Amino acid sequence: MSRIAYVNGRFVPHRGAAIHIEDRGYQFADGVYEVTAVQGGQLVDEALHLARLDRSLGELRIAAPMSRRALGFVLREVIRRNRVRDGIVYLQATRGVAPRDHPFPANTRTSLVISARRARAANAQALAEGIKVIAIPDIRWARCDIKSIALLPNVLGKQQAREAGAYEAWQVDSAGLVTEGTSTNAWIVTQAGELVTRQASNAILNGCTRLALLDIARHIGLTLVERPFSLSEAKAAREAFLTSTTSLVLPIVRIDDTAIGGGKPGPLGRKLRELYVAHAEGQTAKHAALPEVA
Amino acid sequence: MSRIAYVNGRFVPHRGAAIHIEDRGYQFADGVYEVTAVQGGQLVDEALHLARLDRSLGELRIAAPMSRRALGFVLREVIRRNRVRDGIVYLQATRGVAPRDHPFPANTRTSLVISARRARAANAQALAEGIKVIAIPDIRWARCDIKSIALLPNVLGKQQAREAGAYEAWQVDSAGLVTEGTSTNAWIVTQAGELVTRQASNAILNGCTRLALLDIARHIGLTLVERPFSLSEAKAAREAFLTSTTSLVLPIVRIDDTAIGGGKPGPLGRKLRELYVAHAEGQTAKHAALPEVA
Repeated sequence: MSRIAYVNGRFVPHRGAAIHIEDRGYQFADGVYEVTAVQGGQLVDEALHLARLDRSLGELRIAAPMSRRALGFVLREVIRRNRVRDGIVYLQATRGVAPRDHPFPANTRTSLVISARRARAANAQALAEGIKVIAIPDIRWARCDIKSIALLPNVLGKQQAREAGAYEAWQVDSAGLVTEGTSTNAWIVTQAGELVTRQASNAILNGCTRLALLDIARHIGLTLVERPFSLSEAKAAREAFLTSTTSLVLPIVRIDDTAIGGGKPGPLGRKLRELYVAHAEGQTAKHAALPEVA
Repeated sequence: MSRIAYVNGRFVPHRGAAIHIEDRGYQFADGVYEVTAVQGGQLVDEALHLARLDRSLGELRIAAPMSRRALGFVLREVIRRNRVRDGIVYLQATRGVAPRDHPFPANTRTSLVISARRARAANAQALAEGIKVIAIPDIRWARCDIKSIALLPNVLGKQQAREAGAYEAWQVDSAGLVTEGTSTNAWIVTQAGELVTRQASNAILNGCTRLALLDIARHIGLTLVERPFSLSEAKAAREAFLTSTTSLVLPIVRIDDTAIGGGKPGPLGRKLRELYVAHAEGQTAKHAALPEVA
């Protein structure tokens, strides 16, 4: 079966799916995106993702490509046409096509591209043994709260991680405080047992998995503090882990050359991952219980 | 006559010129660009632009799409096919097409897109009366020396300028020092008669017009200092102007609400513009004197 993509109103073969060379996403990174997990054919945390999309579009004053309800329909149609049970759906919206000029053009139509693919990143080993992260300076712009496609610094950071044999790079601001990974949020458990993750601000992307996990942590009564933590505090932590749509919750056992938690995945990270998976499966089960839409 | 674009080895009608939705330029802003002026059908400062392109590609470890000589040939062919005598040629090179994943993909081919259009930005009035700039915080990343397509902050800054009735926004760093405009370099002439522009570093894009003008200024024996200047120093300057490929040299007569040089274009800016135009015309004349290539 060949893959299908949605491009500006049409379902087209993925292989030939194309946008114009003057799409502002291509020339100016003038757009935003969302990656949503698909589990059992259903979207995970759909409401969180669509709310964040609206926020990102609003901050950039890009018109919504369609209503949230219509968008949910198209997302599901892309999933259905690609027969994705477990995987991800990728959505990108840009300011549209216009002759190249920096200011917002008048009368463009928001471009909308959606694609889907099967299978989550296989991370059974990462889960069992834990992963390594490296620390790098945060060289990004001042609006990391917007989920924009201007991802070049993230690409460079992730590549640096890979070349260091690491799964992710934790970005550190000029004050020595960890902001987040290049595509994941950063968490630690202090020696005192506090669960710590940086508060939402312009310095980080407020992850949907982060938000869901905060809810879960509150629900089970963990001592939870949203504040910045330094790289040295992270290296002295009892546990560390990262969260993202595709990685879910992954234990970190090494930051640069420092072993965390004796070099073994910690119990709190494992528990939170189990609870997050149950949370996602709960949504799936709820959807599966609904009658099929013809 | 319909416009023609060059896209990955083919000359295609501009209207239908397209790239794949998984081009890394579209999903990650993982690419670079150059805008070169065309005057009398000839490229202006071609060597400077192609050298800078090589540098940008090198910093991002993107393979050159072809030799510099071949690239010069394709640029000229795009100009010829579009019958551009006076205008610009736009070139964009990205890391190529690959399934979406942050790290550098293996075995992609650099994407290359080139288009051209007639006519310079009409700025007779801007030239005669001078333009206004506003000051905004510089919110960009730490590698502004790379001419990347991750231009979203520049887009937002330029839009802010337009909405304030200004031609450009001068970006100011956390120390209160002007870095540059959103698509132009910034210059002042102090009350002591020094010509000042910020030195090349990671904080600015080292403009080709900037480089050519530095040469000219040295050649005519001006007192020239490459150093940062503060916004307040700029507001107290005798003259101010900006430079870029499309604006050449444009006099600034207002920064925010402060009139510069009594609100009239200054003599040094005018002289430098004349010399720059002569420099560009000199290249054109030299080319025009060569026999036509069949």
